[in-house]
Amino acid sequence: MHQFLSDLDGAGDVVVDPDVLASYRADQAAPGLLPAGTPAVVVRPRTTAEVQAAVRAAARHRVPVVPRGAGSGLSGGANAIDGCLVLSTERMVDVVELDAPSLLARVQPGLVNARLGEAARAEGLWYAPDPASYEFSTIGGNVATNAGGLCCVKYGVTRDALLGLEVVLADGRAVRLGRRTRKGVAGYDLVSLLCGSEGTLGIVTEATVRLLPPAPTSATLAASFASLGDAGRAIARITRQTIPAVLELMDRTTIAAVERMAPQGLDADVAVLLFARSDLGGAAALDQVDRIAGWCEQEGATLTVTTDEEAEGRMLMAARRLAYSALEREGATLLDDVGVPLGKIPALLEGIERIAEREAVLIGTFGHAGDGNMHPTIVYDPHDPDAVTRARAAFAAIVALTLELGGTVTGEHGVGLLKRDALAAELGPAHDVHRAIKRALDPENLMNPGKGI
Amino acid sequence: MHQFLSDLDGAGDVVVDPDVLASYRADQAAPGLLPAGTPAVVVRPRTTAEVQAAVRAAARHRVPVVPRGAGSGLSGGANAIDGCLVLSTERMVDVVELDAPSLLARVQPGLVNARLGEAARAEGLWYAPDPASYEFSTIGGNVATNAGGLCCVKYGVTRDALLGLEVVLADGRAVRLGRRTRKGVAGYDLVSLLCGSEGTLGIVTEATVRLLPPAPTSATLAASFASLGDAGRAIARITRQTIPAVLELMDRTTIAAVERMAPQGLDADVAVLLFARSDLGGAAALDQVDRIAGWCEQEGATLTVTTDEEAEGRMLMAARRLAYSALEREGATLLDDVGVPLGKIPALLEGIERIAEREAVLIGTFGHAGDGNMHPTIVYDPHDPDAVTRARAAFAAIVALTLELGGTVTGEHGVGLLKRDALAAELGPAHDVHRAIKRALDPENLMNPGKGI
Repeated sequence: MHQFLSDLDGAGDVVVDPDVLASYRADQAAPGLLPAGTPAVVVRPRTTAEVQAAVRAAARHRVPVVPRGAGSGLSGGANAIDGCLVLSTERMVDVVELDAPSLLARVQPGLVNARLGEAARAEGLWYAPDPASYEFSTIGGNVATNAGGLCCVKYGVTRDALLGLEVVLADGRAVRLGRRTRKGVAGYDLVSLLCGSEGTLGIVTEATVRLLPPAPTSATLAASFASLGDAGRAIARITRQTIPAVLELMDRTTIAAVERMAPQGLDADVAVLLFARSDLGGAAALDQVDRIAGWCEQEGATLTVTTDEEAEGRMLMAARRLAYSALEREGATLLDDVGVPLGKIPALLEGIERIAEREAVLIGTFGHAGDGNMHPTIVYDPHDPDAVTRARAAFAAIVALTLELGGTVTGEHGVGLLKRDALAAELGPAHDVHRAIKRALDPENLMNPGKGI
Repeated sequence: MHQFLSDLDGAGDVVVDPDVLASYRADQAAPGLLPAGTPAVVVRPRTTAEVQAAVRAAARHRVPVVPRGAGSGLSGGANAIDGCLVLSTERMVDVVELDAPSLLARVQPGLVNARLGEAARAEGLWYAPDPASYEFSTIGGNVATNAGGLCCVKYGVTRDALLGLEVVLADGRAVRLGRRTRKGVAGYDLVSLLCGSEGTLGIVTEATVRLLPPAPTSATLAASFASLGDAGRAIARITRQTIPAVLELMDRTTIAAVERMAPQGLDADVAVLLFARSDLGGAAALDQVDRIAGWCEQEGATLTVTTDEEAEGRMLMAARRLAYSALEREGATLLDDVGVPLGKIPALLEGIERIAEREAVLIGTFGHAGDGNMHPTIVYDPHDPDAVTRARAAFAAIVALTLELGGTVTGEHGVGLLKRDALAAELGPAHDVHRAIKRALDPENLMNPGKGI
């Protein structure tokens, strides 16, 4: 241990204070339900060379490395392992380059998503990926989980904004992957391979991201439905005919929770609220949400409201933004992140209602109707062992239902520790191929072992 | 050899007729400039099980496997190796499933891109990727090269339309990678890893692709510029402010070739023609191309024409569609496929003009201004050894210039045989990581050996 610590010379700020170490044990996933060890040491490098020094020392002493951004992950991907080295990117926060004519930026991994957004805006540009955590999550964490968000129904997920990476591999080598160009097929797409790999293949020390022209002005729709079926048919009709900039939903349980926290005057008999935004600009934006409103009405919407006033649009969307906070006020939450093919959204929502009834748990569902990625949120009393058991049973049942519907066990939060069994069920025989990739790049299994694949 | 052939029982149609074998030697890349061997056998399976039987027999006898779609590749990726097994997907042409409510299709790899387009249209949907070869190239080939096209500036490349793959690996295992959902982060992104891997990691036996709502009606712009600099500034101005559905250019050499083949009345003093299309629909589409026309005029365009009439729009774009055919009529062609960051397009075009002058060769450049992927096309007399030498020198100089500008040696055609040296120059130390992935999935180096990475 003493030799390990002295080998960390050159790895930047090295922390062994037990109180500080304790604050690096877990991320934001299902508190208390997932294992979280105590690290032997936390390092906070500022440069790629310091990251390399840390990884080389860890490799020499066979110490597992757990990379950590903001610690805002929801699957336990950043949870520590007893005796590990936690590599925090919190001091790697620079915008290294912003090349406006080429619409790209190079940034360090610890930069918060919103800070990159500000840097882009200062040049009249836009960084599109907008996970709900954008005000505190980091680009490195976004890359590690391939984070989604609200606008990805039109503009794609983190991977779609990623052009290149600098990565420190398990043996301490630093390599550049990908490119600075929009398109490119030279060699394998290792940028996509690393994106979403949850720190199990290497540590991102720099990301080259694509910027976009700013989206034009917006228009907004909110529509209410008295049944899941009506809402499901409306979603199917919308997605087959147009691509909105945002298409979100929340169910009756979530609506009720929002209403308890911050009364919006939402009807108690509403089964689903659907929200859409258009960013086509001017009259075209209002026209797009008006067409969406028409389809909603034809499928039985009980109320539709459209606006091209930004302030009014924000008010319409307010209930959706409060969804998770409102459910969190009702008890401990187990936040799920399943995805189904678009045509299976109604079957998923109906199945979740049945599971909630059968297991006698409260499940509020909200999520991304435009891409089928839903967040059923199980609310339970953490001090009641029976309630915990039922919450876990409901969670497992939702995952099983998702797989039956041809879906995926995680749409944007990652596997981490939370979804490892579910992952095995989803991948089947292909799991071996994933493991072969892991062995090829991390033969000693030192990079975030036991997480992700 | 006899044992190998009898082990191919169960691999579908097996061909050993030398005349037929000869027709499977090469793809469409630089005829005569790249090695093309003679296969020992061609198999034309219809099912995944038949592909597995072929790959297993090849593995048993250590025979290299060269997969082949339409043979329309432009980098030699499908060129045969002496004594190899060519696995042609020409009989695997089924649309296995078209799930319209979920906006997805599952297809066999030999299906021609345009046939998938028709199947989608029959359901009121759209398959976006549109390589210039879409009327004859196959989905399997599009996946193997991660093919681009005109509309990828807004809608992405083949990878962006790809949700899942069934792949037969080097040992004959068939595995399903990816998913049926729009988003998903369960396990590594092996679909993206396989996409663009040029048959070196496995053989695609089925692809699950994402369909989109049909794009609304279009409007079109053509603009002419008297200098590369003016055109470059106009492109920069456009790409920083809006995302058109198409943004293409052609240079003076290409314009002259088109004019010789099919006179369009194009001015001889035009340095660059720029084309843009909007698919925002109705008035918004015309408004978008009118705004683009305004920026072009402010940067010195000598003429701009916009229209929302589809027939007129097609006429405006006709010159661009004729670009490569027109250059091919001038001699043998060496078609390049380099990509630079958007801001470097003017420097690339200026550099190519200098190279053409220095090497005394004709180089016509056309390509995708919206993503920086350019196709400088060197026209030469194949019977003049000195001309061939100068053409090769010009080709190498363009690749070197591209790397100096921070670009990539192939934007959408693939590495194949044509760009292997260039690839090594681009990847540098990261090349080892690519090779480690290849070894992990194909330890005997039997899948399209000597191609791609």
